Amino acid sequence: MINLRFLLAGAALCYAGQSASLLAQDAADTARIIDEGMNRSQVQQSAHELLDQIGQRLTNSPNMRRAEAWATAEMQALGLDNVHKEGFEFGRGWEMMSSDVRMVAPRALELSAIPVAWTPGTNGTIEAEIIVAPISEVAHFEAYRGKLAGKIVLYSLPGTGDEPTSAAFSRLTSAEIGKLDEYAVPQHDPQDIARYAKRREFALQLDDFLASEGAVAWVKKSYRDGNLLHGSGYTYKAGKSPKLPGIEIAAEDYRRLARLARTGPAPRLSINSNVRFVDDDTKAYNILGEIRGTDPAAGYVMAGAHFDSWAAGDGAVDNGAGSITVLEAARILKQMGVRPRRTIRFALWSGEEQGLLGSLAYVRQHLVSRAGEDAVAADSLADEWRNLYPITPKPGYSQLKAYFNMDNGSGKFRGIHAEGNAAAEPLLRKWMAPFADMGASTVVAGKTGGTDHVYLQAIGLPGYQFIQDPLDYFARLHHTNIDTFDHLRTDDLRQASVVMAGMLLAAANDKDTIAPMPLPQKPLDTDPFEYDYPED
Amino acid sequence: MINLRFLLAGAALCYAGQSASLLAQDAADTARIIDEGMNRSQVQQSAHELLDQIGQRLTNSPNMRRAEAWATAEMQALGLDNVHKEGFEFGRGWEMMSSDVRMVAPRALELSAIPVAWTPGTNGTIEAEIIVAPISEVAHFEAYRGKLAGKIVLYSLPGTGDEPTSAAFSRLTSAEIGKLDEYAVPQHDPQDIARYAKRREFALQLDDFLASEGAVAWVKKSYRDGNLLHGSGYTYKAGKSPKLPGIEIAAEDYRRLARLARTGPAPRLSINSNVRFVDDDTKAYNILGEIRGTDPAAGYVMAGAHFDSWAAGDGAVDNGAGSITVLEAARILKQMGVRPRRTIRFALWSGEEQGLLGSLAYVRQHLVSRAGEDAVAADSLADEWRNLYPITPKPGYSQLKAYFNMDNGSGKFRGIHAEGNAAAEPLLRKWMAPFADMGASTVVAGKTGGTDHVYLQAIGLPGYQFIQDPLDYFARLHHTNIDTFDHLRTDDLRQASVVMAGMLLAAANDKDTIAPMPLPQKPLDTDPFEYDYPED
Repeated sequence: MINLRFLLAGAALCYAGQSASLLAQDAADTARIIDEGMNRSQVQQSAHELLDQIGQRLTNSPNMRRAEAWATAEMQALGLDNVHKEGFEFGRGWEMMSSDVRMVAPRALELSAIPVAWTPGTNGTIEAEIIVAPISEVAHFEAYRGKLAGKIVLYSLPGTGDEPTSAAFSRLTSAEIGKLDEYAVPQHDPQDIARYAKRREFALQLDDFLASEGAVAWVKKSYRDGNLLHGSGYTYKAGKSPKLPGIEIAAEDYRRLARLARTGPAPRLSINSNVRFVDDDTKAYNILGEIRGTDPAAGYVMAGAHFDSWAAGDGAVDNGAGSITVLEAARILKQMGVRPRRTIRFALWSGEEQGLLGSLAYVRQHLVSRAGEDAVAADSLADEWRNLYPITPKPGYSQLKAYFNMDNGSGKFRGIHAEGNAAAEPLLRKWMAPFADMGASTVVAGKTGGTDHVYLQAIGLPGYQFIQDPLDYFARLHHTNIDTFDHLRTDDLRQASVVMAGMLLAAANDKDTIAPMPLPQKPLDTDPFEYDYPED
Repeated sequence: MINLRFLLAGAALCYAGQSASLLAQDAADTARIIDEGMNRSQVQQSAHELLDQIGQRLTNSPNMRRAEAWATAEMQALGLDNVHKEGFEFGRGWEMMSSDVRMVAPRALELSAIPVAWTPGTNGTIEAEIIVAPISEVAHFEAYRGKLAGKIVLYSLPGTGDEPTSAAFSRLTSAEIGKLDEYAVPQHDPQDIARYAKRREFALQLDDFLASEGAVAWVKKSYRDGNLLHGSGYTYKAGKSPKLPGIEIAAEDYRRLARLARTGPAPRLSINSNVRFVDDDTKAYNILGEIRGTDPAAGYVMAGAHFDSWAAGDGAVDNGAGSITVLEAARILKQMGVRPRRTIRFALWSGEEQGLLGSLAYVRQHLVSRAGEDAVAADSLADEWRNLYPITPKPGYSQLKAYFNMDNGSGKFRGIHAEGNAAAEPLLRKWMAPFADMGASTVVAGKTGGTDHVYLQAIGLPGYQFIQDPLDYFARLHHTNIDTFDHLRTDDLRQASVVMAGMLLAAANDKDTIAPMPLPQKPLDTDPFEYDYPED
């Protein structure tokens, strides 16, 4: 591994010295990619169609079905090969038609609120008094028994306000990128998964308890201040829907209710949550297309992004940005008429927000099987699958030579994470090198989690996540009601599309490929928890 | 003036050297003020009652009437003398009971929106297609004639999104305060007032045009991004109400509508603006109370803050903060049983948001008259009054020895503006000196505008505005729907109450008073425009 690294570091140095023969692709291809992607970009048009016209893409929602049809048509219009969808068992569809939440006493006030995904509606307007009953575990139930009948239950701790003391929007400085470039052993807590599974289960236990006590609805507080809403919920499995309507209320409004309840009389709310479940197809679908390679034995490279979103905004930076970039990279390469040695595959994943379910389905269908996986209950598969051993490669395992994932908002690419595999760095560096002057130049060793490359990494395959300028992705857009076109930087997406297209083409044509890491035989003690679990 | 300054700068130096005899009040009084204000503060309780329980205080709204009754009762409960209200002709009352704005096509979407103050309701739900018709002056009308019938007209330019690249919340550093401490000649544009008057008039001309064309409602874009709303409007005069319902839509939602309309088909909106006018009393009221001085010939000092707010939030930092601080300063001084030489008056102004109307009314009732003022139409008085000469002092003119205004949010006091009168600085510095170690120490020369001390300054009287830590006042709270208790820093208000109480007591007891500036005989060429006019 050291040898390989040394050799290829030499290649990168030669590139800097203008020795074109060592480049992964010729300079003319690079120029054409840049020209097409920077000067005739379609990202703005795609963003308008996907984000404004279609909007949110909650997994399996009617809107997601529209988006799937749109993406399929887009891929077909580009002339991609083998455009198809691959289904996997997910659960219920759900959508909100309208929502209205008001305080009606002690004074009239519109509240900022959103139904929690996959909770039932109110079947018209309900009006009731609130009770603030902070409950975060089963042990808390007892204190409220007999006190909740007929009430709207506010179960989050109100907390206090929060003020942003750093800029919401930022770009990475060279110094900050430099700091990323050192490998730290990931923090590993084997209990993480069990803990999060317990929290997810708790949502239904709480709903059960509240319903059995005669409560009429439950309310949680938004985990961000500033009138931002999320509406995330995880009760999407058939037969596991909550009994009560669930609402998220903006932090400012929630805390006002809590303060008013404390001094009394308790406020009364009116809630009209007009939502519906859609159960005609419980499968979620990944959308795939490709540019077929000239050498059938050479395998394939792939770029992907999750296509699903939460329902509060339009899913613009999470992850319309990545989806649009993947499609635009495909467009650039098709427009050039490339005939790569390896197949270049483009993937739009579903169910990412519920546990990276789409990329997991792909891994299970094409890449590996794990002992006993068929015996695991569907709704704990995402939690338990990764701990099943041994792992058995499928024939497709050795075909996947590189996977590039984008899921950190609309900030331009600044580099890529080698995900702990230092041996991969020289090739990644070589493929990225032509785009150094566009700001993408750094290959860092660290591992990243929380999105669709992690199940590939977990089986030793070369799946990588880009480093992106953070912009205001985590500060205020991620999963919120302002994740809209307005906050998408389409100029950044031009750059990202160009770099993605360039790296795909380089990886597809390079004589070298990144060697897989050894297939794990037991759980690694350096695995970070694989996906983000939302705050409550 | 130079002499006076020199003398008193010496006094301040002596204070720093612990020469107590030159202090404005004895150290025991200072300690009692600090103890009462820091350790037994009522600001949090007052904030809850005023902001949570009563909420927004749009001038002359039913909620403002509730707040006026509350403030009067508070002052009476404190045992203030001469608690009373002083009315002045304002216009209509208005309130929103509920509001619901949705896009119904091309897809269902709740929009963040608020009725514009003093616009009529929709009388049930209206549904219509939008048209984006950017109109900012009468000359633009012609382009849209014949195209607006039956439409909801979006008249703002959509623009593009905005990302915050500096921290929303900040405190002043010593260096920043230092930079404030140099006198710059204020920028003066004699056309400002005419320009703003024209803009205000334009609102009704636009409404007239749209109504005559058969439009069914008009919509403006929020001037802040991030799902923030304001709802400010200025058509509060009887007989000058708009004909059409007016709505402000969040920037993200407005721009999405504009983009969808551009590619078509035009979106359809449903609007239910359930508002009402209240015309039983067209007067607005300032609320006043005082601690009577022992020397009837010594005049009075005063602290004030505007009590009215816009309707989108609860008017917490604008200007619940100032109002609560004035009441708390009164409480501290009453609790101490002070018997000041001069009367200390406490004022809560109304109609500030519509042009500093409450403090203007006070000035006209008690301090000066201006030639021909009775001939000026009521609704242009705030614009024209200041340009009438000569100014004739009333008997009360010489009685007002100092006025301290608070209207920059809930940040703690860091100093005070001498408003261009360097001769006032030594006394202001002396009165503030005991609180230097609490962060309030700097007297700066500069002029400030936009709030209720400016009509005093305009007639030469000593009215001053505090320097406050900015926090996130202008960045995101000022006039918005998140101007709520959550974003009020009540610990800062403890400090502000203490400093305000201390300065009032010092000014009330000092053997010296600040000499008035010469009464202006014609317009000054250094007058900045006196009040903020909102962005549209």
